Amino acid sequence: MRQKLAAEAIGSFMLFATVVGSGIMAENLADGNVAVALLGNTIATGAMLFVLITMLGPVSGAHFNPAVSLVMRLRGEITTPQAWAYVTAQLAGGIMGVWAAHVMFGLPVLELSTKARTGMGQWVSEAIATFGLILTILGTVKHRHVWVPPGVAFYIVAAYWFTSSTSFANPAITIARAMSNTFAGIAPAHVPGFILAQILGALAANVVAMALFPDEPVADEPVPNEPAPNEDAA
Amino acid sequence: MRQKLAAEAIGSFMLFATVVGSGIMAENLADGNVAVALLGNTIATGAMLFVLITMLGPVSGAHFNPAVSLVMRLRGEITTPQAWAYVTAQLAGGIMGVWAAHVMFGLPVLELSTKARTGMGQWVSEAIATFGLILTILGTVKHRHVWVPPGVAFYIVAAYWFTSSTSFANPAITIARAMSNTFAGIAPAHVPGFILAQILGALAANVVAMALFPDEPVADEPVPNEPAPNEDAA
Amino acid sequence: MRQKLAAEAIGSFMLFATVVGSGIMAENLADGNVAVALLGNTIATGAMLFVLITMLGPVSGAHFNPAVSLVMRLRGEITTPQAWAYVTAQLAGGIMGVWAAHVMFGLPVLELSTKARTGMGQWVSEAIATFGLILTILGTVKHRHVWVPPGVAFYIVAAYWFTSSTSFANPAITIARAMSNTFAGIAPAHVPGFILAQILGALAANVVAMALFPDEPVADEPVPNEPAPNEDAA
Amino acid sequence: MRQKLAAEAIGSFMLFATVVGSGIMAENLADGNVAVALLGNTIATGAMLFVLITMLGPVSGAHFNPAVSLVMRLRGEITTPQAWAYVTAQLAGGIMGVWAAHVMFGLPVLELSTKARTGMGQWVSEAIATFGLILTILGTVKHRHVWVPPGVAFYIVAAYWFTSSTSFANPAITIARAMSNTFAGIAPAHVPGFILAQILGALAANVVAMALFPDEPVADEPVPNEPAPNEDAA
Repeated sequence: MRQKLAAEAIGSFMLFATVVGSGIMAENLADGNVAVALLGNTIATGAMLFVLITMLGPVSGAHFNPAVSLVMRLRGEITTPQAWAYVTAQLAGGIMGVWAAHVMFGLPVLELSTKARTGMGQWVSEAIATFGLILTILGTVKHRHVWVPPGVAFYIVAAYWFTSSTSFANPAITIARAMSNTFAGIAPAHVPGFILAQILGALAANVVAMALFPDEPVADEPVPNEPAPNEDAA
Repeated sequence: MRQKLAAEAIGSFMLFATVVGSGIMAENLADGNVAVALLGNTIATGAMLFVLITMLGPVSGAHFNPAVSLVMRLRGEITTPQAWAYVTAQLAGGIMGVWAAHVMFGLPVLELSTKARTGMGQWVSEAIATFGLILTILGTVKHRHVWVPPGVAFYIVAAYWFTSSTSFANPAITIARAMSNTFAGIAPAHVPGFILAQILGALAANVVAMALFPDEPVADEPVPNEPAPNEDAA
Repeated sequence: MRQKLAAEAIGSFMLFATVVGSGIMAENLADGNVAVALLGNTIATGAMLFVLITMLGPVSGAHFNPAVSLVMRLRGEITTPQAWAYVTAQLAGGIMGVWAAHVMFGLPVLELSTKARTGMGQWVSEAIATFGLILTILGTVKHRHVWVPPGVAFYIVAAYWFTSSTSFANPAITIARAMSNTFAGIAPAHVPGFILAQILGALAANVVAMALFPDEPVADEPVPNEPAPNEDAA
Repeated sequence: MRQKLAAEAIGSFMLFATVVGSGIMAENLADGNVAVALLGNTIATGAMLFVLITMLGPVSGAHFNPAVSLVMRLRGEITTPQAWAYVTAQLAGGIMGVWAAHVMFGLPVLELSTKARTGMGQWVSEAIATFGLILTILGTVKHRHVWVPPGVAFYIVAAYWFTSSTSFANPAITIARAMSNTFAGIAPAHVPGFILAQILGALAANVVAMALFPDEPVADEPVPNEPAPNEDAA
């Protein structure tokens, strides 16, 4: 369990440092073209997610996200104390990641964001974004285990662009981003709305996934849970 | 079958929301540089396609596209009633996805596009784009099952750029995009030309694939049909 | 053999249409920022290469490039008449792909490029680019068969940027690009210099590969040619 | 051993030529938008890393980086003389790669950079960047061998953006980049600070990895050290 919590903390540290740090870098360099800045932010975040889930998935499951830990608790994969410990590690590691990004870019360590992110459009965005994220995880974990890292990474790449909120989809990162007055920030007053929408989206995905992905392999699929027995045994 | 239709509807919802939503986001932020906007739109669409085909391929085959369902019907993989049910689910889910994008970005839910997309160059583009898409699916499904998700995703990434129409290659998304007066839209009057070209391209690909990809493994390849024996054995 | 030649022709058609078509699209939209245009051109080309090699590799080996066919002839993988037939199919299919790009974008079908691409820097670029391409193919084909499609695709993605010539690395595409007065073009007078440099680079790579990649697995590697015995046999 | 050193030299040649060459290309074309230039530089570097590690990993382990060779020496994977030979090959091949980039772009072969890269923010960046790189390698090599090439490539893609130093994370490339007065350069006087930070980060990662990734499979993991059977059976 100590290894699992260390993995959650280190992974959240690297992930949140990447989200905030690449946002700072991108905004600094993009010469006012916010789409270019978002491209840099997107590519960095997606790439880091792939790395962290690949590397730390076998240790802790690579949640880095209280919404994921909540769903895993509901599904009985972890206990309630484990879930709380996971969330604590995610928040502690992740906030240190935000601070590390500030140090790397020569900004004050302690900040609060002033960036407004609120309103129905953004809340719907967060609900849909988190719904899709949880559905992706539950769908790929069951039948296509090996594709979880690129699945989650590519999902977030898409979600940064198709939602008006740029898809936080993670209560811990929402809190941590409130502590950075940079590209990726969110004003503290707008954090609760985001987190509420995220939890609703996650719960909806859990229900849909139960209906959509049955425990048993789909009947007319020959060997659905053996996606690639010999990947390149040339 | 109910699961399959739910998968088609949910997948089309997420896919069409991504195409339209990322187009809105990209155009809003790109400061008038349309190539930058198209980069954002491309990356989001390709990433989401990878996720949805990976996740929902084992459930429904992950068509999300009446041109694909048509070809699968012609090849006897599904029955005629199944094909119609698939197309209905794709349209219903997909149009709701477009509307969800409008809600997320604070636009009127009901719109009609005014964007002209017509002429010989665009029709040839749609025919070639759909030809390539169907050929990609039929070629990878048979011999390299595991590569279907990245194959289709990367194909669309390329097709957004090498065709003058930005490669709709999907009758359902063509109809749905007529209902959005945004970056990804198409004027309703120009929808029939696109759909006709798409169907012609799909039919041509089906004929070519029969000649190009024989049922038996190609003789002088060491283990050509075992790069990934059972990706999602649809 | 007829299937192989059809695969080479269709693959070259799609590849060359992508290179030229995405160049036209990118230049049209990039608002004068050539780096943005090259990003679009790069992503489209790399994505299409991945698709075509995945789909057509099991049929013809997916050369689409006389420099590759030359090296395969030198290594005894194909006969001399086969090599000539391959090159003919590549040129015929590829030139039709360039013409198709012109039709899609409403340009005159028949054009000659006026774009100067010459000088020692560009020739060294073509030699190094083709050296790296052939080395990538020979290195991955032998020990990591399954990674050939992303290996070649990512190699070209990198080579578009690290060479001053943007890495044609293919005599057939060099000839075909001379027939397009667009972003990807090359003046006919400068074609021979490019092709000569490409052949020299290819021959050098063939020699280096013989020394670098022995027929037998390297001794002290645990399972060097089985990178992923059971990719995800869950 | 001769093959291994040749692989390290050729790989470093191609990698460093890519880092420097794509930087020159990107800056030349990006019309003053440094974020666009960094996107081109990032994509080229990540793509080339994937190719080289895939191709040369089975030969030499694909270090291309003295920090990696140092950690492999500490872990007893190679001997001290081997480590020195690796580092020599990396530096010799890599510097020739930088010079090749200069030739390709028509610049003077011999240059020294005048670009200032110094200060606490940049040193912390290099330490964190190298820490993450080594952790990625050690974490994926042990449990998910097949994902080392995309893992390292994507890690560097992210690190180019989330650190203020753009993540050199490699003492050999730091020295080589001091010899290029271009986008990727670093003033010679600032090299020692970077290298010191990189070594500290690498050593820290080695310690953390021993605790985080035990030699034995994690208890409640079905088959965690068989890189792929259960991709991330959390």
